[in-house]
Amino acid sequence: MTTLGELGQRAKQASRALALARGEQKDAALLAAGELLVQRSQEILAANQADVDRAGAAGTPPSAIDRLRLNPARVESMAAGLRQVAGLADPVGEVVEGWVRPNGLRIEKVRVPLGVVAIVYENRPNVTSDAAGLCLKSGNAAFLRGSSGALASNQAISAALREGFAKAGLPEDSVVLVEGTSHESAREFMRLQGTIDCLIPRGGPSLVQAVLENATVPYVIDGDGNCHLYVDASADLDMAVALLVNGKTQRPSVCNATESLVVHAAVAPEFLPKAVDALAGVRLVGDEASRAISPSIGPATEEDWAKEYLDLVLSVRVVEDLDAAISHIQRYSSGHTEAIVTRDLGAAERFTREVDAAAVMVNASTRFTDGEQFGFGAEIGISTQKLHARGPMGLRELTTTKYVVTGTGQVRT
Amino acid sequence: MTTLGELGQRAKQASRALALARGEQKDAALLAAGELLVQRSQEILAANQADVDRAGAAGTPPSAIDRLRLNPARVESMAAGLRQVAGLADPVGEVVEGWVRPNGLRIEKVRVPLGVVAIVYENRPNVTSDAAGLCLKSGNAAFLRGSSGALASNQAISAALREGFAKAGLPEDSVVLVEGTSHESAREFMRLQGTIDCLIPRGGPSLVQAVLENATVPYVIDGDGNCHLYVDASADLDMAVALLVNGKTQRPSVCNATESLVVHAAVAPEFLPKAVDALAGVRLVGDEASRAISPSIGPATEEDWAKEYLDLVLSVRVVEDLDAAISHIQRYSSGHTEAIVTRDLGAAERFTREVDAAAVMVNASTRFTDGEQFGFGAEIGISTQKLHARGPMGLRELTTTKYVVTGTGQVRT
Repeated sequence: MTTLGELGQRAKQASRALALARGEQKDAALLAAGELLVQRSQEILAANQADVDRAGAAGTPPSAIDRLRLNPARVESMAAGLRQVAGLADPVGEVVEGWVRPNGLRIEKVRVPLGVVAIVYENRPNVTSDAAGLCLKSGNAAFLRGSSGALASNQAISAALREGFAKAGLPEDSVVLVEGTSHESAREFMRLQGTIDCLIPRGGPSLVQAVLENATVPYVIDGDGNCHLYVDASADLDMAVALLVNGKTQRPSVCNATESLVVHAAVAPEFLPKAVDALAGVRLVGDEASRAISPSIGPATEEDWAKEYLDLVLSVRVVEDLDAAISHIQRYSSGHTEAIVTRDLGAAERFTREVDAAAVMVNASTRFTDGEQFGFGAEIGISTQKLHARGPMGLRELTTTKYVVTGTGQVRT
Repeated sequence: MTTLGELGQRAKQASRALALARGEQKDAALLAAGELLVQRSQEILAANQADVDRAGAAGTPPSAIDRLRLNPARVESMAAGLRQVAGLADPVGEVVEGWVRPNGLRIEKVRVPLGVVAIVYENRPNVTSDAAGLCLKSGNAAFLRGSSGALASNQAISAALREGFAKAGLPEDSVVLVEGTSHESAREFMRLQGTIDCLIPRGGPSLVQAVLENATVPYVIDGDGNCHLYVDASADLDMAVALLVNGKTQRPSVCNATESLVVHAAVAPEFLPKAVDALAGVRLVGDEASRAISPSIGPATEEDWAKEYLDLVLSVRVVEDLDAAISHIQRYSSGHTEAIVTRDLGAAERFTREVDAAAVMVNASTRFTDGEQFGFGAEIGISTQKLHARGPMGLRELTTTKYVVTGTGQVRT
């Protein structure tokens, strides 16, 4: 049996060739892989059906089965994703900056691939294709560890991708899928020092904590979003209602959904009733001040303030002023996205400067923190950490830089 | 007694004020601290003498005592370092990039401080002042854990810095020094999740491994340098001798010193005797091909190829061609700095593209990988990892970015 270390070495070897591949070759590989995904739809859907049947027999909840299930449209959408990535600009080789030193040394900071990018993910089989495509385009080998529940689907998808990449003359091992999925092997995976250049866990808090505790390889955390919308005293209240409804209800299960409403006391009596009406179907929990205004708001506990509901639930807090709003948000923010609705320039400036988050929005929905919405074309995740990448991670965030220094025999004195 | 967590919270609190401080206030604080260091020379030197006496009594080796020892010139040099940092441009607030989306959303990526930067370091007391200065200028609180052997020195220095920063109206806790220095507390320090935004260990491989094993906070590794100089078939051999002598002997104890010489077989018979003559006083160990040319080269073992000597020792290898040179370097490189001496454009291009290191030099000494030499003004270390920062880390590498998104009520559809 192939060991995890050997699989990693295959990815490492492939990454050397990928780092030197031209853009046109990578794009041809992406298009070939997309074509094969569609041609192999039958096989992929059959493998997926086997995973879905196993999940059903094991009593997996319907929402999880829905994330696992593929259909012809979802396979086509994976292929479309690869075509879209082929159309993006190649990040590799970009000279990020360059200058000449007084002694004549010419210094260039050049964008290069990371090497082997490892992704640990849960039941969604489309991640196999999406992640492999972004890794390939950025010149990295993808070393993928999906869940055991999606193994047959992931195998069928990665087989098509490997064959497609090989058609364009790139190594099959540009995508390496790990097939053993025990907890023990997860720990071993996170400790492949010297093999994995960047690990991106895509999963819940327990996966993130396992990475923090066990990983000895470099990683980027794609964390939770406890996103607040603060409605300032000077807010356009109709705009605030629209942003709140969009942030909370447009897609409640995602990390950039609005989870908590903070309202300035001066406008709470007018705003909250409008908000409550507009949020019909959303369960509301709030502090005493909000409940005194609107009896349809239930009591919030301390836990509510920190909670990422990912559901049609919203916490509500009334604050005396901007300072109290910022303090509340600083205390409970997960550092993802925080928004203010205001017409007051000073309030907007203070909010954007003082609130510490990957993205701070003024008069816009929290739902905009997203690689596509930012114009990156696609994203591998959203970083809530401060090192390397913060916010939506596109192709550039899958690269590092190298200094190329050119001289004419300079020595240090 | 104050707990480590409480000390961290003080630094966190201070970091909030520092993030909002104007550049002129930070510069005034740096100048005031520099002035106080000089005024307090007597006290600092007396505290340092106590550390030196304890180290002598404990049988500490002379080289370590030398790193620990301060004198009036070294104190003045710390103060000069703070004045120099005051003169650098403030990295905070820089708009790294900005664009407008088709829906009118305006997106700006703005440079902001990390928050609390923690440094674990060994005996050099000047790190206390250098690190605190760079952290303050970049808007971060410095949370410092020096060695027990330098505790009295570090206390005296940090007391002066704290008082200096406070004179300019910034929090004393912009510098927080940890006074307990047991191994247990080191582990606890690396696990202050939510308090430490970035940990930079400055020490040897055992400290680095302890961070990889135990840290749950984000970190940047300042690693070893097993730096190679490759002399190509087309090299100017006099230039190659000059670069080799400079790289190996100008300051052998540092991470950017040249540790290994790789020579193309076509020029080895002419080059090696010149190199051996020029390196009088350096112990040379090499492969058989090199020893056949120069009998003063001793035999190298497998361990030599991977070794960072930090001393007047050099390993020597003769290779058949550029491919063999690149393979050898890829295998043994620590990813710090690798150099080629060549007049061949194709060889230079292949070397700079294919060698995977923080810095790749063409016709320049490996000793140039350094924040001052790159023009950053000062450095907090040299990263050999690929995430966040790679190569010399100056003020910008002590920052992160935040997206500020400004709209007029946009929602997602």
